[in-house]
Amino acid sequence: METKKLTSISTGAFPKSNKVYVPGKLFDIKVPMREISLADFVQADRTIEKNLPVTVYDTSGPYTDPTYNVDLNKGLPQIKNQWILDRGDVEELPEKSSEYGKARLNDASLDAIRFEHHRTKPLKAKEGKVVTQYYYAKQGIITPEMEFVAIRENQRAQEYYLENGYSVDELKDIKFITPEFVRDEIAAGRAILPGNINHPEAEPMIIGRNFLVKINANIGNSPTTSGMEEEVEKAVWAFRWGADTIMDLSTGANIHETREWIIRNSPVPVGTVPLYQALEKVGGDAEKLNWEIYKDTLIEQCEQGVDYFTIHAGILKDLVQTTVNRKTGIVSRGGSIMAKWCMSHDKENFTYTYFEEICKILAQYDVAVSLGDAMRPGSIHDANDRAQFGELETLGELTKIAWKHHVQVIIEGPGHVPMHLIKKNMDEQLRLCHEAPFYTLGPLVTDIAPGYDHITSAIGGSMIAWHGTSMLCYVTPKEHLGLPNKDDVRVGVVTYKLAAHAADLAKGFPGADIRDHAMSKARFEFRWRDQFALSLDPEKAIADHDETLPEEDKKTAHFCSMCGEHFCSMRANYEVREKMDVAPCGKN
Amino acid sequence: METKKLTSISTGAFPKSNKVYVPGKLFDIKVPMREISLADFVQADRTIEKNLPVTVYDTSGPYTDPTYNVDLNKGLPQIKNQWILDRGDVEELPEKSSEYGKARLNDASLDAIRFEHHRTKPLKAKEGKVVTQYYYAKQGIITPEMEFVAIRENQRAQEYYLENGYSVDELKDIKFITPEFVRDEIAAGRAILPGNINHPEAEPMIIGRNFLVKINANIGNSPTTSGMEEEVEKAVWAFRWGADTIMDLSTGANIHETREWIIRNSPVPVGTVPLYQALEKVGGDAEKLNWEIYKDTLIEQCEQGVDYFTIHAGILKDLVQTTVNRKTGIVSRGGSIMAKWCMSHDKENFTYTYFEEICKILAQYDVAVSLGDAMRPGSIHDANDRAQFGELETLGELTKIAWKHHVQVIIEGPGHVPMHLIKKNMDEQLRLCHEAPFYTLGPLVTDIAPGYDHITSAIGGSMIAWHGTSMLCYVTPKEHLGLPNKDDVRVGVVTYKLAAHAADLAKGFPGADIRDHAMSKARFEFRWRDQFALSLDPEKAIADHDETLPEEDKKTAHFCSMCGEHFCSMRANYEVREKMDVAPCGKN
Repeated sequence: METKKLTSISTGAFPKSNKVYVPGKLFDIKVPMREISLADFVQADRTIEKNLPVTVYDTSGPYTDPTYNVDLNKGLPQIKNQWILDRGDVEELPEKSSEYGKARLNDASLDAIRFEHHRTKPLKAKEGKVVTQYYYAKQGIITPEMEFVAIRENQRAQEYYLENGYSVDELKDIKFITPEFVRDEIAAGRAILPGNINHPEAEPMIIGRNFLVKINANIGNSPTTSGMEEEVEKAVWAFRWGADTIMDLSTGANIHETREWIIRNSPVPVGTVPLYQALEKVGGDAEKLNWEIYKDTLIEQCEQGVDYFTIHAGILKDLVQTTVNRKTGIVSRGGSIMAKWCMSHDKENFTYTYFEEICKILAQYDVAVSLGDAMRPGSIHDANDRAQFGELETLGELTKIAWKHHVQVIIEGPGHVPMHLIKKNMDEQLRLCHEAPFYTLGPLVTDIAPGYDHITSAIGGSMIAWHGTSMLCYVTPKEHLGLPNKDDVRVGVVTYKLAAHAADLAKGFPGADIRDHAMSKARFEFRWRDQFALSLDPEKAIADHDETLPEEDKKTAHFCSMCGEHFCSMRANYEVREKMDVAPCGKN
Repeated sequence: METKKLTSISTGAFPKSNKVYVPGKLFDIKVPMREISLADFVQADRTIEKNLPVTVYDTSGPYTDPTYNVDLNKGLPQIKNQWILDRGDVEELPEKSSEYGKARLNDASLDAIRFEHHRTKPLKAKEGKVVTQYYYAKQGIITPEMEFVAIRENQRAQEYYLENGYSVDELKDIKFITPEFVRDEIAAGRAILPGNINHPEAEPMIIGRNFLVKINANIGNSPTTSGMEEEVEKAVWAFRWGADTIMDLSTGANIHETREWIIRNSPVPVGTVPLYQALEKVGGDAEKLNWEIYKDTLIEQCEQGVDYFTIHAGILKDLVQTTVNRKTGIVSRGGSIMAKWCMSHDKENFTYTYFEEICKILAQYDVAVSLGDAMRPGSIHDANDRAQFGELETLGELTKIAWKHHVQVIIEGPGHVPMHLIKKNMDEQLRLCHEAPFYTLGPLVTDIAPGYDHITSAIGGSMIAWHGTSMLCYVTPKEHLGLPNKDDVRVGVVTYKLAAHAADLAKGFPGADIRDHAMSKARFEFRWRDQFALSLDPEKAIADHDETLPEEDKKTAHFCSMCGEHFCSMRANYEVREKMDVAPCGKN
């Protein structure tokens, strides 16, 4: 039987954009970025003002590099493999060590859907070794991954400023990111650099509140819809629009095989909720879950290369009682499964009781733990209640345990929270969880806008990110209504990209405003093509513009259909400035 | 020639919704609201729990009342006419008194597009009388309009609480809106009740930071697109989705006639920027503008029934110089026109020099002034700069002048402002403009998301409204790209409705959370039809849900396609609560 071939995928560069690779200084690394070239501005007297290219953060991986030959059936280049091996602290296992992983591999009926170049001999820490970036950082070590993210976060901002005429002296107060700073933030637990040693295809990225705000896109099939091909394309599509990580939340058939396809083709870290798959393994009956099945699932996924696990270890049996007075009870999928298990067996949550065991496993692969907020409020009514903050306290205890085992930790957060309670949420998280990075779902600032919940949540998301959340989990327009389709994924990702960026601006992240300023200058100079290229979603910007003015000459016209030629305020400035005898556009 | 007939219009009630009319206690008034009926919740043991109907604010006018026979050619009922006449301070003019108004009336070539029942004999204050709600309020008078808005703001919240089992005692600390409070807020200048005596069709509404946050939708044709029929339908469409006011920003042909159609069919206040029409009258050449033409335009529009005018009286000649270092100069249409005029003539802005004259005219019709922010930042770079705050200071001076003439005042605001500068904007506005209501355009919190600027601006809009802005001017997805189409208007209005509502929740407005709680309870009880009906956009909610699960039985299913049957967290709660031996849904 022939191995499954996937061919249809979204590739190609963005308008006016080149993939550039910035080399490291400490290590032999190449950090990919997108460089957007801009047109000159031709003044009325025909003098030409150059507009320098703008470099932006790029999550899209090799898919947007026209020189790269995409082959989904082979997977992406394993860029981190040598760095991992060079540290000398890992060993290749003779075979997969999870029972389930082995069983799936030996099931010939799955050959047709199996990824061909799957990882048969996973890496694992050598006996007695710890292989997490957190551990290295605490030893004072700077890894290639750390230098990679330092370069990546900077987006050549310093170079841009210097080329634009700023002096070194003028820039000395700007805190550009250094590899040392990256190391120190990771060592302090304030940031994580997720990177399973079995996912060497991933381009290093960092999650922490002193870095660019990151966004996650959830993908994955559900029992009612969606197949494998669709999920891989959905993933590549999410990278294209800006997802910094994806979570594969599949709950249907063949999720082991689908996950392999996704990880091997993913340039960004991949997260999962192992409990979902564990539940599938016991036929969907939460009562039948047990530690052995869960543990085997963790190992299975560690060996496939999942970079972080959501684990709902903070929902304790006694806390479940506190949800009775809630408007919407427990709205976390994993949380409700664990609650059912606790109530059925009248026992404590096994991911809590076995948490040290879990950490020991994760440390051997450098899988980060994302402590799930089973008690996140699912309605305005339930925000910041006893259940939510009670669980957060437990997550703080678990953070310390994970750190003791050198495991990288992030904390998941709400949910539905009205604006005036958002800051309190952030402050409590920092206090109770010892500044471990916060990773929130929105929050949604009202319950009454289904169909628009990417927006209700982007409002809360941008606010909480400004206050210190490190990564935002996207919400699509389909939230509360159904499974997102491909277009929903794009809208969700772009919406969260803009929310995250708004927070970067508000936090004054070095160089974050370069793109905004370039956009506004392009607007003022009526460089329409540059405006499109600088947009988070160039295709939509072009389509929206062209809906009323599709003609080629309107791409350089000094007006658009919004106000028309005689009422264009930008255009009027030229005349005003002429009368004032000043150049229409200043240097800045 | 036959009078133009318009027939196609969006009417019909929302799902599960009735139009109800709440009577006044002081006056013979009927305040329209939308009552959403909800299904019972049937518990596992078959006991039935009633869910009381929820009443919501309703801007849609008679168009959503199935008992009302819509006739666009006749216009809406003149509900306020008798109240106005009863005060005995107005007189009917023998004919229109603006030169332009008369000329248009006498031009037979316009008969074909003229609204048939146009206002030939406008009302005006009797000599020596002032007819503004602000003036009445300062006299200690409560008008029917004031009682109307008091009832309207409350949305029967008190009744809802009492019927839901709260005691009078429990409610005593909640500050429900009273007619006295309305009067006092207007008298203090902290709120306006726009209502031109020549627009008796409008349902009274109030704009002030101690009331529900309002939203405005801009409509109007531009020289490049759109005709008259389209604009009237766009207006009715905007009312339907929740616009509290509309601004007619038409700049093309026949705007006098189009405006008549719009006002006669508008149940909400209508605003304009008279400068746009004045500019049309001088052939689009800003230099040719003068006080006489502008003044005649003000009178023309006062007599048609425009409820508020944007007047860019704060852009002073010397201030124009400060825009030279901006990234995007002057982005206000009206502002750039005035700047051109000032520079051409080397004279001070005539709307500034004649501001007292303007106020005297406005006071005779109760047209409110919306002091335009010609210097609003059009980019992140230009936010909170000297030009912006310099103008705001002038607007504060003008506020005092308008108040001296008993004219109601609101202040327009930005624009593009990063999140961390939003509160400062609000605080400065309150300080410099003596707490006159703020009316902002967004603000947009980043420049880089054209195609998604309804979202970038809803983020800033909800934040600034929480901090005290009284009305938000919507931004559509087409902002910066082209003229919005009908679907853009809907998306813009609904997006702003949710942003305004999020601010109401954050401000703790009495009863604002009733709809959220009802929605969340409907979610938890899997009453899908109730969820749709409680949504800000029921049609989209239904369409999004039905995309994957269109079958009728899925409207009561205990899951959706997002997580599927076995992974529905809400559903799991039922089992958890059963094990805990508590009812699945609490009272609250």
